[in-house]
Amino acid sequence: MFVRNAWYCAGWDYHVSQGRNALLARKIAGERVVLYRKPDGGLVCMEDRCCHRQAALSLGRKEGDCLRCMYHGIKFGPDGACVEIPGQTKIPHKARVRTFPVVEKNNWIWVWMGEPEQADESLICFAVGYDDPDWNIKTSEMHVDANYRLEVANLADLSHLAWVHQNTLGAGDPATVGAFTTIQDETTMLERGINTRYWIRNVPANAFLQHLFPPEARFDLHFDITMTVPCNWILHFRAFTAGSRTEGESDGELVADTYTCQTICPNDEHSVEYYFSWGASRTTDLPGLSDMLRETVEQAFLEDASVLEAQHARVMEKPQHPTIDIIHDAGAGKMFWVLDRLLQAEAKAEEEAALAGAGRSARAGAPAC
Amino acid sequence: MFVRNAWYCAGWDYHVSQGRNALLARKIAGERVVLYRKPDGGLVCMEDRCCHRQAALSLGRKEGDCLRCMYHGIKFGPDGACVEIPGQTKIPHKARVRTFPVVEKNNWIWVWMGEPEQADESLICFAVGYDDPDWNIKTSEMHVDANYRLEVANLADLSHLAWVHQNTLGAGDPATVGAFTTIQDETTMLERGINTRYWIRNVPANAFLQHLFPPEARFDLHFDITMTVPCNWILHFRAFTAGSRTEGESDGELVADTYTCQTICPNDEHSVEYYFSWGASRTTDLPGLSDMLRETVEQAFLEDASVLEAQHARVMEKPQHPTIDIIHDAGAGKMFWVLDRLLQAEAKAEEEAALAGAGRSARAGAPAC
Amino acid sequence: MFVRNAWYCAGWDYHVSQGRNALLARKIAGERVVLYRKPDGGLVCMEDRCCHRQAALSLGRKEGDCLRCMYHGIKFGPDGACVEIPGQTKIPHKARVRTFPVVEKNNWIWVWMGEPEQADESLICFAVGYDDPDWNIKTSEMHVDANYRLEVANLADLSHLAWVHQNTLGAGDPATVGAFTTIQDETTMLERGINTRYWIRNVPANAFLQHLFPPEARFDLHFDITMTVPCNWILHFRAFTAGSRTEGESDGELVADTYTCQTICPNDEHSVEYYFSWGASRTTDLPGLSDMLRETVEQAFLEDASVLEAQHARVMEKPQHPTIDIIHDAGAGKMFWVLDRLLQAEAKAEEEAALAGAGRSARAGAPAC
Ligand code: FES
Ligand code: FES
Ligand code: FES
Repeated sequence: MFVRNAWYCAGWDYHVSQGRNALLARKIAGERVVLYRKPDGGLVCMEDRCCHRQAALSLGRKEGDCLRCMYHGIKFGPDGACVEIPGQTKIPHKARVRTFPVVEKNNWIWVWMGEPEQADESLICFAVGYDDPDWNIKTSEMHVDANYRLEVANLADLSHLAWVHQNTLGAGDPATVGAFTTIQDETTMLERGINTRYWIRNVPANAFLQHLFPPEARFDLHFDITMTVPCNWILHFRAFTAGSRTEGESDGELVADTYTCQTICPNDEHSVEYYFSWGASRTTDLPGLSDMLRETVEQAFLEDASVLEAQHARVMEKPQHPTIDIIHDAGAGKMFWVLDRLLQAEAKAEEEAALAGAGRSARAGAPAC
Repeated sequence: MFVRNAWYCAGWDYHVSQGRNALLARKIAGERVVLYRKPDGGLVCMEDRCCHRQAALSLGRKEGDCLRCMYHGIKFGPDGACVEIPGQTKIPHKARVRTFPVVEKNNWIWVWMGEPEQADESLICFAVGYDDPDWNIKTSEMHVDANYRLEVANLADLSHLAWVHQNTLGAGDPATVGAFTTIQDETTMLERGINTRYWIRNVPANAFLQHLFPPEARFDLHFDITMTVPCNWILHFRAFTAGSRTEGESDGELVADTYTCQTICPNDEHSVEYYFSWGASRTTDLPGLSDMLRETVEQAFLEDASVLEAQHARVMEKPQHPTIDIIHDAGAGKMFWVLDRLLQAEAKAEEEAALAGAGRSARAGAPAC
Repeated sequence: MFVRNAWYCAGWDYHVSQGRNALLARKIAGERVVLYRKPDGGLVCMEDRCCHRQAALSLGRKEGDCLRCMYHGIKFGPDGACVEIPGQTKIPHKARVRTFPVVEKNNWIWVWMGEPEQADESLICFAVGYDDPDWNIKTSEMHVDANYRLEVANLADLSHLAWVHQNTLGAGDPATVGAFTTIQDETTMLERGINTRYWIRNVPANAFLQHLFPPEARFDLHFDITMTVPCNWILHFRAFTAGSRTEGESDGELVADTYTCQTICPNDEHSVEYYFSWGASRTTDLPGLSDMLRETVEQAFLEDASVLEAQHARVMEKPQHPTIDIIHDAGAGKMFWVLDRLLQAEAKAEEEAALAGAGRSARAGAPAC
């Protein structure tokens, strides 16, 4: 079950070039789509399924602004309407492929999977792209064979850094484990998600940073996370040398000011694509530092993938197995509350539309089935 | 759903040798069968499933005319009747494996999957085998992961040559595309299929032939296709230097007189085996020419396979997705009309047999269930 | 369908070491479990599924006697009870993972998949382990993609040695085939299985032994097999030079006195793990002899695997396909009688427990659903 009226990330902007055969096939929230660029650079996203006999349009041919199905040669405009059927002159009214609103923002490609007229660009999440001159952002991606709600729960709670990521994002020492698992955060509900902020003070560096500092070095770490549905997760992460304050902004020296922008696109109920980045501000960057951040987050997501894929297999086998809840489930609970409220609203709207349609049919004397 | 009372091709005759362990396992129209040759060369086709505990008879041992199951050693005659049960003398009446009528013709092996008494050899399609002295026929085969009806539709309309096969069987130039997609054919309905004939005149050579002629060379091409159910497709293809006539037989020079014989055997609803050939008449053959034809058709079928496998995945996902029809669907429509008429007749016969059986049981006082 | 109240073999004792990360994940009778050793060497077996969010405990961390889930850090004692939830002090009563009785005996690890209070160690089958000083036992293992009942039937009848194993355990010559398929055995029903004993006299050596003796050598072979549910199979196999007696103990020379101990653990309905050994007594052993026995049984089980996997595929396709029975099915019939009686008893006990529970709920006024 996926929210339809939402922007889903289809990848990085460089995944769709102006190449002769640059047709990007994706599966987004259960729907097969194909993306391509028109000669003016604008993106088109349409269902990857010809309206004639369901051939893959992603095996087709770009012709100017149009896409030609290379099975029997039907040509479609960027609005999905058929503009040519080789060998016949009449074009049936229904000869049309569904298209999806598509927007590029901060180097990500966003596709609206719901009603086109409801597509609201203000719902696209804030992010820092790799072309932002103030940041040295490095990008990557990963495929994970797990249901997307498991990913939401994973990202909505960072206590797992102490365990899953003990050798990368965590710190491996017992004191830090305590600091990571007894966080005092400030959480704000957003229209479509949550914002969470907290400090972890006077701790050793995260494992991936430790070799850059003397062992006795201590830091104040600040996390500012905005998570929105379907599964966008933007973290402003800052590390200061440990200061004297126990609340409010650290008075230590800012040694790393970084953004990591992450979005997860469900292919279907069994796998996701993960598009993510990490990088430092130009003022705190050093040669190789942002590359190290990218390597670190790749390593961490491989750690997550092994946990989540095993978890997914178990949940599939026993979806009704009893579970207990713990304190760290709160964030995930809020995200699921938002997701489920949207899902319910869409189910209700669909039901009402069906009823209205039946009413019209009944009034017109048409059979309701 | 497969027509039962039809001949299905189980492969080329050389797929079943006299070898000690030459037991060919196939799946035909959903049934597992095993084929072997008796010492006199005659073929046997039986269900690949021992009547004892369903072991694979294709893992068995040939013994003269017989086949021994190598699990517990039960031996079956070429008629499927059990002739030996090691360790016991009594052979139960039901100890028998189903056999299927099998015929070799034109180097193809044909199996009748329906009622043996209805097996009618005159229904085996005409073809030109590789042992025909008048033709230099080269053979090949391919596995495709697609439903067999998609293959029927593919072969029943050659307009796709202009698109799928633009670099092989098609010609790649816009003029030829037009010629390939606005064909005036003569179609005749046959008892179990269709015959289609047409000329494409004054066009460049097909892509696979172009390097053999000067660029300005033009040709008259003649197609004569007989397609029969389940999925046999025999094309007599001739290329003449472009002549002056605009109707009737070309008055150009016959430069290539060729036969390509193709048959597709459904394994089950999700894949097929393709057995095919192409070759020139001895009078128009040149060293290497028929090998080139075989290479060309192999290349073309790889092009089809990529289209059909993607299409199959999409149809499986959304079998009810709305589609539109175009002019080029006419040939497939005729083939499906034949297929579906046979399917309906078989469903009706089965129903009547069930009713008759129930009637007899009722009269005999036996329980009808 | 699996018997719950039975000991299933989880592998050889060396499959679970004292290693830092030695967490053995298995699937036994459809349940995922994880096994590890406590510092004192004792084994723990628990469900491989955290009670929080179903993460794999086999991806966790051993901490003394405990196992920590490395997703959110919940720690479980060897009894399955939660002993720590990082970040919170209250531990819910239901925070507990199922554990299974586990016993080591004769170098095999045995897990009881049913009610812990019914775990009866006297039901663990007799075997000869590799650490028995009187025998030179060599061990091995294999995965087979077949339902476990097919394995039971395979092991319960040795007439298949003449066919499946003609080049290994059988002898390949017609006389021996007769001897192997017309056995006069003595069978005794056991509480949970059968014991079968028989002589095969004055036959050539089994194929795997023939190169060690002159071609004219003849032997008396004695088989003493104890088979118990779920699928334990212990064979005391002895070879004597052919003696003069036609009944009772052979008066030939004992040239090989061997034990092969085999147990098959169903992972689920579609595959099994096979743990097995073979070896000679110290008094009849020779350098390399027991290694040869192990190689032979490995080779033979590869022969079985190819038969059983093909059979499994066919039975899955047509579970209701009619079959005939033969004389050699008797042993399997007895094993299935035992298995099915236990399955019925468990189904009945479960039903009664459900009824009793419903009764209690009704009396307490609680909703019965
Ligand atoms: S399937 Fe696209 S044109 Fe036929
Ligand atoms: S399964 Fe064929 S003889 Fe037993
Ligand atoms: S899933 Fe095990 S601690 Fe959360």
